[in-house]
Amino acid sequence: MCHAETVSAPASRPVCVLGLGLIGGSLLRRLADTGVRAFGYNRGAATVDAAAAAGYAASGDLHATLRQAAEQDAIIVLATPFTALTAMVEAVRDTAPACLLTDVVSVKEEVACLVERIHPNGRYVGGHPMAGTSHSGWAATDPSLFEGAMWMVTTHDDTAADDWLAVAGIARAAGAYVVPAANDAHDRAAAAISHNPHLTAAVTAAVGAGESDLALRLAAGSFRDGTRVAGTAPELQRAMLEANSISLLNTLSETIDRLVAARDALRDHGSVSVLVEAGHRARLKYEAIAGADPEPITGVRIGDDGWQEHLRKQAHQAKVWVG
Amino acid sequence: MCHAETVSAPASRPVCVLGLGLIGGSLLRRLADTGVRAFGYNRGAATVDAAAAAGYAASGDLHATLRQAAEQDAIIVLATPFTALTAMVEAVRDTAPACLLTDVVSVKEEVACLVERIHPNGRYVGGHPMAGTSHSGWAATDPSLFEGAMWMVTTHDDTAADDWLAVAGIARAAGAYVVPAANDAHDRAAAAISHNPHLTAAVTAAVGAGESDLALRLAAGSFRDGTRVAGTAPELQRAMLEANSISLLNTLSETIDRLVAARDALRDHGSVSVLVEAGHRARLKYEAIAGADPEPITGVRIGDDGWQEHLRKQAHQAKVWVG
Repeated sequence: MCHAETVSAPASRPVCVLGLGLIGGSLLRRLADTGVRAFGYNRGAATVDAAAAAGYAASGDLHATLRQAAEQDAIIVLATPFTALTAMVEAVRDTAPACLLTDVVSVKEEVACLVERIHPNGRYVGGHPMAGTSHSGWAATDPSLFEGAMWMVTTHDDTAADDWLAVAGIARAAGAYVVPAANDAHDRAAAAISHNPHLTAAVTAAVGAGESDLALRLAAGSFRDGTRVAGTAPELQRAMLEANSISLLNTLSETIDRLVAARDALRDHGSVSVLVEAGHRARLKYEAIAGADPEPITGVRIGDDGWQEHLRKQAHQAKVWVG
Repeated sequence: MCHAETVSAPASRPVCVLGLGLIGGSLLRRLADTGVRAFGYNRGAATVDAAAAAGYAASGDLHATLRQAAEQDAIIVLATPFTALTAMVEAVRDTAPACLLTDVVSVKEEVACLVERIHPNGRYVGGHPMAGTSHSGWAATDPSLFEGAMWMVTTHDDTAADDWLAVAGIARAAGAYVVPAANDAHDRAAAAISHNPHLTAAVTAAVGAGESDLALRLAAGSFRDGTRVAGTAPELQRAMLEANSISLLNTLSETIDRLVAARDALRDHGSVSVLVEAGHRARLKYEAIAGADPEPITGVRIGDDGWQEHLRKQAHQAKVWVG
């Protein structure tokens, strides 16, 4: 059985990963490689076989996996696509209801609602590692995938300190920095810097390929880099983008508005300066933030009065938690 | 004096590069490093000094440089930004009117019109190497910049075989493959796979940075790669994009139409499948073309009846000329 009062460092507490694709598989490998007792479940037998052959504890039996999680007080990580979450959370509720639950799904409000609806008495602290490639599946897994990456951890005013520390501990064990944020702020941010870029990559690719094979022959760096994520499996992209539709509609509308203004300025005045200048300033700002070592959050002790708000405020200044 | 009837391999014929930024400077270095008699002009003295210090023949005296070109029957390469071309072509007309002229500017119809207007008796065959980085200036030059890149060479029905071979020879000497195309086809292609991607990169960056510093903190691969070219100097982007405004208006309008359709589908049906699927198919097609060794154009002897059309037809099937 899980014990809600048990709080331990991730290295001494088992982790159960449900779904061994790129993210879940990489996490299982990283944790196991660094001495964490980690085990996982995957529906497809080929992945289970590949993981087991590589020496990892993997099973195709969800019920048995969750029984083990309950017996060992494991932290359960939901790492399936969004579309498979309902069945996973139902199984957790039925078999390992007291276990602390987190996830690695790219949207947070929809997942939180789903968990609340299906497993209202569950202990859940959301998470989202900002890492990935355009490849997917066990063959693409990499224990160093999260090294230096940003890992958002849900930080609301009612988030329990013990549970937060346990989930943040998994992110740290994976080599990531922890970015504390509210779910809605995360989802707006994810729409702006991940989901919307998937749509602009898709449209850039479609317009380029629609012109001619000559065009694709001439394509160089701007097209190659600008369309890379369009190579991600469409069903994974859809699961990610459509689960964040409200925030994505906002960023997509802003994208359209800015492009329409650019088209009008180009047609009427022969100029694209407003958009090009704005894009350049934005890119320089991003490079300044991404290029420097992240500044750590300081002066907050997890569990002290108002710790959640203090974390969020510093994260809003682009700082990270390193424990 | 230049002699129109003189045709020689680029290795035995000097090349004069006007403008020693990223493209012109890299070309000067590459040609000189491989034994071509190459010399160049640049307006800014710092670049001239840096090039000379590195052992290259560079001058800040345009008139003297062009006199040397005329005396040595050099092929002149226009490698300044589009906005500086008028003054360059006027100087060529006045000092080295018989020299074969080419360019490396990213649009071809506007350049051809400009050359025709200013220097109507000049011998001009346009070119455009599809290579670059988001950096600019002499410090960013790299003799291997064109290695394996595609280099479009203007191929119209009235293009002279000798002049075409001379310009194509420079591209080959630089390590590039030659893509024969008409100017208008090139410009449509460049809009689709280079200029439009600069605008989608700019809008992706602007929307992302407009959200919050938290968003930029969370930004990962999709944002980093999708916005890379937004880091290019705005004045260089503007010179490139605004000179191709007709073609760019078409691709930008198609981009907007596809995004509006995606927004409507997301809002009304919760689905982004049409755009994501189209983008994915387009990316796979691009990867198939870009990932394989280019297929060479065969069965055409330059100068034979209809050689230009034969080259263009094969280039439209994504083939390249390797001589």
